[in-house]
Amino acid sequence: MKVSGSLNKFFNPASVAVIGASRDAAKVGHSILSNLRSNGYAGALYPVNPNAKRILGLKTRPDMLSIQEAVDLAVIAVPARFVLDSVRQCARKGVRAAIIITAGFKETGEAGYMLEREIIETAAAGGVRILGPNCLGLINTANGLNASFAPLMPRQGSIAFFSQSGALCTAILDWSLVRGVGFSKFVSLGNKSDISEIDLLGYLADDPQTRVILGYIEGITNGREFMDKASEVVQKKPVVVMKGGGTSAGARAASSHTGSLAGSEKAFDAAFRQSGVLRAHTIEDLFNFALAFADNPIPEGPGLCIVTNAGGPGIIAADACERSTARMAELSPGTISSLRKNLPPTAGFYNPVDVVGDARAERYEAAMTAVINDPGVDGALVILTPQAMTEVEGTAEAILKLKGKKKKPVLACFMGGNSIKKGAEILRAGGIPTYPYPEDGVRAFDALLRYRRAKERPEPGFRHFDADQERARRVISSARETDRHELGEKDASEIISAYGFRTPKSALARTSGEAVKAAIKIGFPVVLKISSPDILHKTDIGGVRANLRTPRDVETAFLEITSNAQRLMPSAMVWGCLAQEMVTGGKEVILGMTFDHSFGPMIMFGMGGIYVEALGDVSFRIAPVGVFEAGSMMEDIRSFALLKGLRGERSSDISAARECIMRLSQLVTDFPEIVEMDINPLLVLPEGEGAVAIDARIVLDYFSFEKEK
Amino acid sequence: MKVSGSLNKFFNPASVAVIGASRDAAKVGHSILSNLRSNGYAGALYPVNPNAKRILGLKTRPDMLSIQEAVDLAVIAVPARFVLDSVRQCARKGVRAAIIITAGFKETGEAGYMLEREIIETAAAGGVRILGPNCLGLINTANGLNASFAPLMPRQGSIAFFSQSGALCTAILDWSLVRGVGFSKFVSLGNKSDISEIDLLGYLADDPQTRVILGYIEGITNGREFMDKASEVVQKKPVVVMKGGGTSAGARAASSHTGSLAGSEKAFDAAFRQSGVLRAHTIEDLFNFALAFADNPIPEGPGLCIVTNAGGPGIIAADACERSTARMAELSPGTISSLRKNLPPTAGFYNPVDVVGDARAERYEAAMTAVINDPGVDGALVILTPQAMTEVEGTAEAILKLKGKKKKPVLACFMGGNSIKKGAEILRAGGIPTYPYPEDGVRAFDALLRYRRAKERPEPGFRHFDADQERARRVISSARETDRHELGEKDASEIISAYGFRTPKSALARTSGEAVKAAIKIGFPVVLKISSPDILHKTDIGGVRANLRTPRDVETAFLEITSNAQRLMPSAMVWGCLAQEMVTGGKEVILGMTFDHSFGPMIMFGMGGIYVEALGDVSFRIAPVGVFEAGSMMEDIRSFALLKGLRGERSSDISAARECIMRLSQLVTDFPEIVEMDINPLLVLPEGEGAVAIDARIVLDYFSFEKEK
Repeated sequence: MKVSGSLNKFFNPASVAVIGASRDAAKVGHSILSNLRSNGYAGALYPVNPNAKRILGLKTRPDMLSIQEAVDLAVIAVPARFVLDSVRQCARKGVRAAIIITAGFKETGEAGYMLEREIIETAAAGGVRILGPNCLGLINTANGLNASFAPLMPRQGSIAFFSQSGALCTAILDWSLVRGVGFSKFVSLGNKSDISEIDLLGYLADDPQTRVILGYIEGITNGREFMDKASEVVQKKPVVVMKGGGTSAGARAASSHTGSLAGSEKAFDAAFRQSGVLRAHTIEDLFNFALAFADNPIPEGPGLCIVTNAGGPGIIAADACERSTARMAELSPGTISSLRKNLPPTAGFYNPVDVVGDARAERYEAAMTAVINDPGVDGALVILTPQAMTEVEGTAEAILKLKGKKKKPVLACFMGGNSIKKGAEILRAGGIPTYPYPEDGVRAFDALLRYRRAKERPEPGFRHFDADQERARRVISSARETDRHELGEKDASEIISAYGFRTPKSALARTSGEAVKAAIKIGFPVVLKISSPDILHKTDIGGVRANLRTPRDVETAFLEITSNAQRLMPSAMVWGCLAQEMVTGGKEVILGMTFDHSFGPMIMFGMGGIYVEALGDVSFRIAPVGVFEAGSMMEDIRSFALLKGLRGERSSDISAARECIMRLSQLVTDFPEIVEMDINPLLVLPEGEGAVAIDARIVLDYFSFEKEK
Repeated sequence: MKVSGSLNKFFNPASVAVIGASRDAAKVGHSILSNLRSNGYAGALYPVNPNAKRILGLKTRPDMLSIQEAVDLAVIAVPARFVLDSVRQCARKGVRAAIIITAGFKETGEAGYMLEREIIETAAAGGVRILGPNCLGLINTANGLNASFAPLMPRQGSIAFFSQSGALCTAILDWSLVRGVGFSKFVSLGNKSDISEIDLLGYLADDPQTRVILGYIEGITNGREFMDKASEVVQKKPVVVMKGGGTSAGARAASSHTGSLAGSEKAFDAAFRQSGVLRAHTIEDLFNFALAFADNPIPEGPGLCIVTNAGGPGIIAADACERSTARMAELSPGTISSLRKNLPPTAGFYNPVDVVGDARAERYEAAMTAVINDPGVDGALVILTPQAMTEVEGTAEAILKLKGKKKKPVLACFMGGNSIKKGAEILRAGGIPTYPYPEDGVRAFDALLRYRRAKERPEPGFRHFDADQERARRVISSARETDRHELGEKDASEIISAYGFRTPKSALARTSGEAVKAAIKIGFPVVLKISSPDILHKTDIGGVRANLRTPRDVETAFLEITSNAQRLMPSAMVWGCLAQEMVTGGKEVILGMTFDHSFGPMIMFGMGGIYVEALGDVSFRIAPVGVFEAGSMMEDIRSFALLKGLRGERSSDISAARECIMRLSQLVTDFPEIVEMDINPLLVLPEGEGAVAIDARIVLDYFSFEKEK
């Protein structure tokens, strides 16, 4: 149960009560009140504490109900055992927004988890939305509201930052003041018992002070909801997220930290990609990207031009560009001749443009102007190293002049220490992102570019296929009645057939005579496979014979297979043999699915055999998967060239494979009790001939399914 | 022609002459003299300038020969057209070391190249070694020698830095003063007309002030010599190199910059790896690694332990560790119980060890002590975020106490801005490398670890095989006489057979009758292939028939193949058909070789067909390749699992494949005129059965070969 409604009272309250305000300067309840008082917030403040008359010069109330005036936001900093009562008071008082600073809940174990749940249920019933518990609080620089115990107040700016780690908030805040980075909103999420990154994304998308949304998260509970919200928000502004706790070592740390279950790396990568969220892999990139987004237009295309007064750093930038999704722009003849006019003969007139070590501001400006006006240039990175004639500040001013002339991003890299400090400050103050190393600047441009692509990616193109859902349900129900969790070829084929997969013509034969009749009906050659609910790995016991071309072949094979089974698995119940059409001439691919704790069913695609087993050449997408993602997940694998056909070979039926991906997506979305499955191999025939699911396997988990409901 | 001898006169001259010293403070010749005077250098200084009596209070001489006293080092800063004469004077005066600061040589084109060559030849004839031209100069902090026009003097320290980019030197110098990084030697290489990174490596290896050698290079001329020297030096101290100009965009920039030909990325990767040089991919890593090496022991093993006062950054570090070659150390029960004794119950007692947000210095110290004494821990990274109770400076002091207690590296990450500034300074002054982000600390530990592995890598294990060099030479000479540059199967097979490769039994048949006789002798089944010096792509014209099982098959195939050739390539000279043993049952691999401009012959290995073509799954090594590298280059490819055998399949003959790699290495080393070759496929048979070279192709370049000689 969740109370919906805007988070506006959290960020723009007319009045704030601090429950647990304290006179003791060492206490968190004191820091919060002090922060609320001293950063320009103009609303009413009500310290609540039964044991004090005045704190920091403000009249204190013994409890919430003693406050006559309306209260928009309560900040709760009392010991854990009193928090429930505080929340009850808030509900009775009609407060709609509360921040629980106090720790000692879910993160401490079972008892804490139960207490947290009771608090959240009480809050929800009383119409109170909760941020936290176990958080630092939040800050809105627009109205000077610092409802946190952070030791510092950030500068105003256009970056909104939320974090699941409170300590990271403090460190980032401290660092931002030195680097001159400003924030619009600053939010510590804590245990995310009610308000999560999803609510925040929704609020920040429409926050006029916010141009870019940054987040640090360790886990997501409602993954699919996060994806939907993020996809929506990305259309309005960039979302850059760093995800901690992804690798197995990280995940171990995460589960002992906030108690949240960290989803797998692959699932997060797929989810971020599908929803257009940019993933930063280091904290440094997170902020480097944010600086680029904070004050820059998004580039129209991938062409980056580098202007430098030193060859080495120009080469380093060009190398970094080659490693990114950006491209070194090719300058037009007009630009080159303008550069020739304005630069000395020893200059570099191609990209990277080398204005040479003795370049003063004027020469930089001439080069920059020529470059930025070139229609083939989508953005520029200006590199400066401090040399004898270099005018650091003058060059910074010259770069600022360019800003806004063309709707192209301009980034700077001023390399050095004290010599370039002032220049870098001028640039930052003027809204030009400035980095210490050329590679940072290139990666930041690349992030801008990736945002453009994320924003412009096509509609997912979800399709609904006619499927015999009832037929599939009957197979699953019957498995459930006999408590079978693993479905082998026979049942799995039945289920996927119901969802429109083509499977080989086949018939169950209980005797060798029946097998021969079946083979004649199907048409030679056929394959014969053991049919038993107890034998999942048929080849291991000699349970498969392929390429049977005559009735005699079939008869012999039937006897061999069944005697093998009797000998090697005497206790297995054997239904007989499956006689099956032998399909040849296609390329083997694997379609699979696993259930991810954060995002639900996740689809896998890869080329069969060695490519999956030895090379791990597979790609993932979160279901449901539409036309666009189904196509792109095939293109993602390195061995995709095999499907397109090498050296003039005929292409495989890629559109049939794409349709299979979407049909699988529909199946696993319809039946959440399917927690794992393989269609292996799916034989993709030459173009126009479709695809055939040769074998399949499904794992069911009724218990998880019940829990989900 | 090259003068050998130590570089000692460059770094420890008793006297220095500045040719082109100037009174004009804006001139380079003034800056150099001023730098020499004002940084503590105690040797004699002789300004040389015919138009001035005194400069900076020093008596000026009109030319070198007017100096009565001995001169150890000359710094030349006259215009390019006067440099040759200055060098002549140096030679006559008996100067053994000269730095040419002046630019305008090789980097400007043909005329400059010729002038530079003349200068170098003159210098060599006169026994003068040259640094530059087109460089910033050099600095030795041990004796205060600043023989450069750098605007700053670096701090003393244990990092030696050389750079092919002078501007990068200036920027790094400037930056180092802010970050508190100290240098032993600082060298700008310029055009490397005489002294190169190879000479410097040799000198710095024995320099007592230098603990780690850092370099930025854009190209290497004598690659093999570099590798030999580097392998030797790496045994004494770590060598970390950043290579610019690798990618195609970068290479374009490099060729317009210093005129040096940038070798390919693959060759540099292979060469660095084979010689134990650590490659840094960003300038930031270059210095982050250097800081770690400057003052730390090398870890015994991969186990890193993280101690943190904040969960988020701990998780981020654990993630980074998982992505590196380091591993999260598993703490012993003793360590864990000691942590339980000293930390509050909410702490994290496993790695990452979370001392919790309210940890003071004492608690950090207790945790660090327990961790560093754990035999399973090979190094520690301490993370600090500034929180309410945090004792930043006290914690820094506590970390310093640990240093040197155990021979294990300790690194720190202090996150934040002003709050942590003093603490970080204390650490840096005490020799603890301190980084702003957790990932940097982990990557630096990883670099220490990679250095240990580089240092301890096995001997190359070069082997010499008996080979019929004369037989191979005859084939090549005959191709040369007829000016053929591409050798097809017949000639190439002859050459590799001479080097001990097993090739299919085969015989040339001029008629269908001869073909049948040959087939009978070889044994059925056979393969028939067109034999013509003009047809390299035999399958394209229907020139191959396989699996011929009877004399009749062979007869028919012979007629088909020859008539195909006549029809499709009427002008080709056809020798007949090659009847060949049909080898089956192995795994196809490709062995290849290309000639790299910097490093000479480079060997390639990959699995055949799709793995090379579509996946690019190949590995490279610079020849000669010994047992160790031949083995590791096979293990490097992702599809190596195929050779080892999947799912209980029998392994291929890996040691035969390894031997083939080494035989190829010997062949291409013996014949430098081979600039490209493929053995494709090499069929690797099951274990114990060897390998057969089914087809081969060789490209010869007599001209390059002449040039090399």
